[in-house]
Amino acid sequence: MPPTNDRFLRALRGQPVDATPVWLMRQAGRYLPEYRATRAKAGSFMALATNPELACEVTLQPLARFDLDAAILFSDILTIPDAMGLGLTFAEGEGPRFARPVRTAADIARLGVPDMEGELRYVMAALRLIRRELGGRVPLIGFSGSPWTLACYMVEGGGSDNFGRIKAMALSEPALLHQLLSVVTASVIAYLSAQRAAGAQALQVFDTWGGALAPAHYREFSLPYLQRIARELERGTGDDRTPLIVFGKGNDPYLEELAQDVEALGVDWTIGLGEARRRVPKHIALQGNLDPATLYASPEAITREVARTLDEYAAANGGSREGHVFNLGHGLSPDMDPEHVRVLVDAVHAHSLR
Amino acid sequence: MPPTNDRFLRALRGQPVDATPVWLMRQAGRYLPEYRATRAKAGSFMALATNPELACEVTLQPLARFDLDAAILFSDILTIPDAMGLGLTFAEGEGPRFARPVRTAADIARLGVPDMEGELRYVMAALRLIRRELGGRVPLIGFSGSPWTLACYMVEGGGSDNFGRIKAMALSEPALLHQLLSVVTASVIAYLSAQRAAGAQALQVFDTWGGALAPAHYREFSLPYLQRIARELERGTGDDRTPLIVFGKGNDPYLEELAQDVEALGVDWTIGLGEARRRVPKHIALQGNLDPATLYASPEAITREVARTLDEYAAANGGSREGHVFNLGHGLSPDMDPEHVRVLVDAVHAHSLR
Repeated sequence: MPPTNDRFLRALRGQPVDATPVWLMRQAGRYLPEYRATRAKAGSFMALATNPELACEVTLQPLARFDLDAAILFSDILTIPDAMGLGLTFAEGEGPRFARPVRTAADIARLGVPDMEGELRYVMAALRLIRRELGGRVPLIGFSGSPWTLACYMVEGGGSDNFGRIKAMALSEPALLHQLLSVVTASVIAYLSAQRAAGAQALQVFDTWGGALAPAHYREFSLPYLQRIARELERGTGDDRTPLIVFGKGNDPYLEELAQDVEALGVDWTIGLGEARRRVPKHIALQGNLDPATLYASPEAITREVARTLDEYAAANGGSREGHVFNLGHGLSPDMDPEHVRVLVDAVHAHSLR
Repeated sequence: MPPTNDRFLRALRGQPVDATPVWLMRQAGRYLPEYRATRAKAGSFMALATNPELACEVTLQPLARFDLDAAILFSDILTIPDAMGLGLTFAEGEGPRFARPVRTAADIARLGVPDMEGELRYVMAALRLIRRELGGRVPLIGFSGSPWTLACYMVEGGGSDNFGRIKAMALSEPALLHQLLSVVTASVIAYLSAQRAAGAQALQVFDTWGGALAPAHYREFSLPYLQRIARELERGTGDDRTPLIVFGKGNDPYLEELAQDVEALGVDWTIGLGEARRRVPKHIALQGNLDPATLYASPEAITREVARTLDEYAAANGGSREGHVFNLGHGLSPDMDPEHVRVLVDAVHAHSLR
C-alpha cells in the first residue's frame, strides 16, 4: 500500500507531485518541548534511542505539529559501532563518547558485523512500531552514518576538531583503515537492508565528515565505500524500489561521482541548488538545501528564502519542480523556534503548490 | 634592503626561487614549549598579544627552531573589534569572548575606525620591534581578519556553531550588516596600511568563516569586502609592492572571483592544489595547502605528503615550482609535535631544491 501522502517517494522517483515535499534533518529533536519532556522521562539519550516505544513517540512528535511529508526514524548515527561493542555514551551538553575506541590492528580484527535482530533489534522494533503507528500517513525514512563518518568516531573515540588520529591512520596505516572501513561498510549494508525489511520506505546515508578530507583521501576513504553501498544494497525495482539518498556535508566537489547508483543526493547550503541540479543527471533527485541558520531570521525572511530555494531549483530544471525534496542543508539546532519551523514547512507547500 | 632570504617575496611575485618557501599558519603558538613559557609569564593571552616585547619574542621562537622562510606577527585576528571597544577576553580552554557584542543599529552607529597609533599602537610597536630583531633574515608578514569574519565574532559575541545571529541579520536587516561591514572594511584597510608602514613586508587577510555562507550570501557579504580591500589598499608598485594574500577556509568555489587585484590566494586542503593552479591566473601566486592533520602522521608520511603537494603544484604549473608558497591549509594545533613540524619544513626545501 502506498502512503496516503506519497509526495516524498514520488519526488525521489522523479514523478509529478502536487507540491514539493519537505522534511527536515533532526526534525525530531531538542527544539521541541515535547521531545525534551520525553527525553527527560527516558533519563538519558541512549535510554531514549534504545526504547522502541519512546523512539516511536519522538519520531511522531514533529508530524503532529507540522505538515511534514516524511517521518524519519529517531535514532543515532552511532548505533552500529555501539552494537560492535565500543560502548557509546553521551555526556550532558557534550558529544558522543566511545569507552573503547578503535586504534590498533587488534582492535579492528575484533570487529564484526552486528546482529540486526540481536544488538540492533531495538532499531528494527522501533521501525516496525513507527510504521504501524504512522498508519500509512507519510513514508518512513531509515538511515545510517557513512562508513568514513562512523570510522571517524570509532577511531577518534568521539567528536574531533581535526580528525588527527584517523587521518594519521589514513597516511601511516592505510591498509588498516581500509580493513576498518570494509567491516563498517558491510555492517551499514546489513543495517540498511534490515531497516528496509522492518518497514523503512526510503534510506539515507549521512556522510557528515567526508568534507573534512582532502580530495585524494575522500576518493580513497569515503567515496568508494559510499559507492559500494549504493551498488550492493538490495532495494527492489520500479515503484517498489526503496530509494537511497546519500547526504554529505561539503560533498559539493564530488556530486557527479556520488550520483552513481543512488536515487537521490542530499546537498548542504554551500552550493547553489541550481548548480547542483545542472551537474547531477536529471534522473537523480536532489534533496536540500536551505541554510539551517535561516530559521533564526524573521518569518518574512524564511518565507522569502524558501521561495528563492524552490525557484532556484526549478529554474535549473526547465521550470519544473520535479525531482526535488525540500530540506535544510544540515540539521535543526536546539535553540530554534518551532513556530519558525512551521513557517518554513508551510511556505514550501504554499509556494510550490500547482 | 631586501631580506637575506627573499624566497617568500620572490615566490609571491612569481620570480624564480632556489627552493619553495614555507611558513605555517599559527607557527608561533601553543605547540611550542617556549611559547607556553612566555604565555605563562605574560599571565593571559591578551597580555601577551598587547605587549610588543613579548609578541616579538614569540614571533621569533619558531624561526630559532625551524628553517622557515617568513615570520608572521604574533597577534590575534580580533584586535580591530577590541580596539573598537568591544572588550575582548579569552577564557582558558575556550574561544574569544566580547563583553559588548554588536547587535543593534545603535551598537553599529557607535563604531568607528580605531586609531592605528592609539588603541592599536601595540601592534605597530610589535611590528617595528620584530623588523629590527629580524635584522633582514626573512620577510615579516602582517595580517588581519576579513570583514565578514570579524563581523561574525562581533555580532555573535564569540565563536559560533552556526552563526545564527549574524545570518539572521543578513536576512532580516541586510542594510545594517552592510553598514557594519563597511566600517570594519575601512578599519581593515587602515590597519593593513599601518602595518605596512610599521614594517610588514607582506599582508594576509584571513577569511576564516566565509565558507559558512551560502553562495549568494558569500557574494553579498564577504567577497565584495575582500575585493574592496584588494582594490583600495595602497601597497606600492613593482618589487616594492607589498604583496596581499587572501586566505579563506572553504573558498574553493570563489577562487576566480577572489583572484582579482590580489598578489596571492591561500587555499585550504579540501581542493587539490593542481586544480587551484589551473583555475587561478598564472600571475597570482598560490599558498598552501597541506592538511594540517598530516602532522599527526609518521615522519615518512609527512615527507611523502609534502612531496606530493609540491609535485601536484608543479605538474599543474608546466613543471615549474614558481608562484608557490608552501603552507598548511589551516593552522597548527596545540597538540602537534614540533619535531614533525621540523620534518615538514625541511622536506619542503629538500624536495624543491633546484
